[in-house]
Amino acid sequence: MQHFTKIADVSNLSALIERAFECKRSPHAWPSLGRGRTLGMVFFNPSLRTRVSTHRAATLLGMDVISMTVGDETWQLETRDGVEMDGPAAEHIREAAAVLGRYVDVLGVRSFAHLRDRQEDYAETILERFRACAGVPIVSLESATRHPLQSLADVLTIEQFKRRSRPRVVLTWAPHPKALPQAVPNSFAEWARAMDYELVIAHPPGYELDPQFTEGATISYDQDEALDGAEFVYAKNWSSYRDYGKILSQDRSWQITPEKMARTSDGYFLHCLPIRRNMIASDAVLDSPRSLVIEQAANRIPAAQAVLRTILETR
Amino acid sequence: MQHFTKIADVSNLSALIERAFECKRSPHAWPSLGRGRTLGMVFFNPSLRTRVSTHRAATLLGMDVISMTVGDETWQLETRDGVEMDGPAAEHIREAAAVLGRYVDVLGVRSFAHLRDRQEDYAETILERFRACAGVPIVSLESATRHPLQSLADVLTIEQFKRRSRPRVVLTWAPHPKALPQAVPNSFAEWARAMDYELVIAHPPGYELDPQFTEGATISYDQDEALDGAEFVYAKNWSSYRDYGKILSQDRSWQITPEKMARTSDGYFLHCLPIRRNMIASDAVLDSPRSLVIEQAANRIPAAQAVLRTILETR
Amino acid sequence: MQHFTKIADVSNLSALIERAFECKRSPHAWPSLGRGRTLGMVFFNPSLRTRVSTHRAATLLGMDVISMTVGDETWQLETRDGVEMDGPAAEHIREAAAVLGRYVDVLGVRSFAHLRDRQEDYAETILERFRACAGVPIVSLESATRHPLQSLADVLTIEQFKRRSRPRVVLTWAPHPKALPQAVPNSFAEWARAMDYELVIAHPPGYELDPQFTEGATISYDQDEALDGAEFVYAKNWSSYRDYGKILSQDRSWQITPEKMARTSDGYFLHCLPIRRNMIASDAVLDSPRSLVIEQAANRIPAAQAVLRTILETR
Repeated sequence: MQHFTKIADVSNLSALIERAFECKRSPHAWPSLGRGRTLGMVFFNPSLRTRVSTHRAATLLGMDVISMTVGDETWQLETRDGVEMDGPAAEHIREAAAVLGRYVDVLGVRSFAHLRDRQEDYAETILERFRACAGVPIVSLESATRHPLQSLADVLTIEQFKRRSRPRVVLTWAPHPKALPQAVPNSFAEWARAMDYELVIAHPPGYELDPQFTEGATISYDQDEALDGAEFVYAKNWSSYRDYGKILSQDRSWQITPEKMARTSDGYFLHCLPIRRNMIASDAVLDSPRSLVIEQAANRIPAAQAVLRTILETR
Repeated sequence: MQHFTKIADVSNLSALIERAFECKRSPHAWPSLGRGRTLGMVFFNPSLRTRVSTHRAATLLGMDVISMTVGDETWQLETRDGVEMDGPAAEHIREAAAVLGRYVDVLGVRSFAHLRDRQEDYAETILERFRACAGVPIVSLESATRHPLQSLADVLTIEQFKRRSRPRVVLTWAPHPKALPQAVPNSFAEWARAMDYELVIAHPPGYELDPQFTEGATISYDQDEALDGAEFVYAKNWSSYRDYGKILSQDRSWQITPEKMARTSDGYFLHCLPIRRNMIASDAVLDSPRSLVIEQAANRIPAAQAVLRTILETR
Repeated sequence: MQHFTKIADVSNLSALIERAFECKRSPHAWPSLGRGRTLGMVFFNPSLRTRVSTHRAATLLGMDVISMTVGDETWQLETRDGVEMDGPAAEHIREAAAVLGRYVDVLGVRSFAHLRDRQEDYAETILERFRACAGVPIVSLESATRHPLQSLADVLTIEQFKRRSRPRVVLTWAPHPKALPQAVPNSFAEWARAMDYELVIAHPPGYELDPQFTEGATISYDQDEALDGAEFVYAKNWSSYRDYGKILSQDRSWQITPEKMARTSDGYFLHCLPIRRNMIASDAVLDSPRSLVIEQAANRIPAAQAVLRTILETR
């Protein structure tokens, strides 16, 4: 594996999943694979779960880890070519990426959508320039439009708990007070389709995701109907792709409650965390034994470990 | 040892102290005890001494360390149950603690008193929820009401330099321009009593600490009298427990000077650092050979190493 | 080597350079030299390149690394002696340095010029107090007036690419929108003179550096003339030493362009990075095969590794 920023980077998905389950069973089985190798992680946006789980995965493989919390503001990078850099950006991404690529062996990058300009966010400029200029494998730690380490953990959790080969998985929008990026739902849809799950995406009108991610999924504007027979319910808020970055609804009737879960086929509840209790889902759902959110978060470690193992073994 | 957040967590105090002196003599004697184990440290408040000394102690034992500087503001956690989370807090402490407990083997937590609401601070909500929900041993890196790693280092320093089995130890309030928590004096009093030192606590009226920590100690409003015959003088500022969080006095006559030290029985000077020179104590005291403050700070490493060894060996 | 904060600390420059090239050829050859030793790095100012490259160098030698991003504001240290500390500074540098010296084996310190008071900056108070009080070797990670790890990397790059023993090296001022310290050019001049390069320093009138660093170099106010026959062109902006900290010129005609490079003797281009494209130098210069800026940045690792090796082997 050269890079890991989207599903298209994964040449053999079932092998990656098998590898992740090996890591989950035996996390300490490869203590020297990454000996003398360094994972650098650049955070243009804050991170807790991703930072800690990926760090842990790397150290399990014997790698050293250097985290750089740079912030969108503290380290403004120029991404346009040919400009006279007399503004706030003190460095061009060409040099930034090339230099970091000389300092570390694998480079993780987190850079969120700004939700101001759809074309700019969906161009994934930061991530793509790192891919092009760093000269080392790039691992997405969540980018403007995708969060593949999360999606791999999501898939692992479904594989761990599914009762039949092609489960009915419902990704449902849920209300939230702030405008959130589409990275998690985009990415989950992309991975769920690659896994050939029966994928239903439910949301109020206007919340349609970019069709490149959802092609082949069933889209529903009726959450209740969508939940009928669901084996996994993945709740998540996102802002509008069409009216880019806007909050079109805060409809509390889309909150996942025990009544909603009762429509499912003894379904499990998923969320990538952090989750706002009694907004996205009620306490009773989160505290029930059908909630897998902690296990799903725990699966971030084997997910990251499998990706790093694959990169280290490929090099 | 399951947790280390207060003296009551220590089942065998003299064994812990013996263990710490072993670590002080031979810090490199257990390089593999923590191999493959990770210490996570979550800082809701800034830390330098505690972070570096605890990190160092962990790496001496072969552990990996992941520090999370989250800040009271950058990662607001909801601690109340049952609320609709539509405010600034993006995550409930239940999920935060449970997830971190899946990522690391031992979890350090720093969370200061806010000095606004005594009941809230003394409930130790953050720490107690981490103890209840993380599923891994919790080490206090200073909480609202206690600082046990500091207290253990304080006790080590006294044990290292005491001339008789039951030394006279004076904990004295000293002036300071800002309102400070009671965690260090509370905790020191708790440990000094457990060590059965002859403990005198001197402060101006109104600075009485919570009696649960000071029971059995002699309380004095006369610093000079308290210092007579003292073998150890532990100076520290704190804000009022009664008029909660208030500064009632900035009386400079409580500063520790050579004249004050002359009243002692060739006493040693202690302080947890950072210390404001010529406020808490004068230059002449800090620069005299009777000042143990650097040795006391150095003892933070064997203190943390002994605690981590105990936790690792218990598991 | 006791400390590494200026060229005068280097007792054998050619041995240090030889050692750095050994590290460049075989970075993994000393994986246990620093086992059980800790490098602490204190950043009063932000750092990316220095932090990552020095961290990497230390881990290649088996050291543990603890980075402390403290900030000029977040951790205000009193540096004056004898004052009553009732202001914003909560700690005296005497205690800060002495304590950190008890926690780590080697201490890196970054502390920039404030460009307000020349005498204060050139006294290097922070760095000198750490040297005096920490009790462990101090490595400068860029101080108010020098950046020796950068200078060593600069010299390595010249040694790597030079075509004759005493190359003509031109350090030239170039325009920049903000006032920058003199640390990099001061330090480079100091090292280039120690290497006995033919050093020319070109800048507009008023940008003369402190003569202690430039003695023996040729000073030129005519960039074109200076570039004639240059084998290495080191471009860098700095603020005025005479009108301390002031921007006296933003003359774009001092930008390094292909036309300027055409005057050189097939010269190489150097810069310490970060570099503002089309301000300091044009895209065509940075993207040409004569630009060594990425290799120069990469040489920060063997530079730091050689310094740490020397310190570890001396102790």
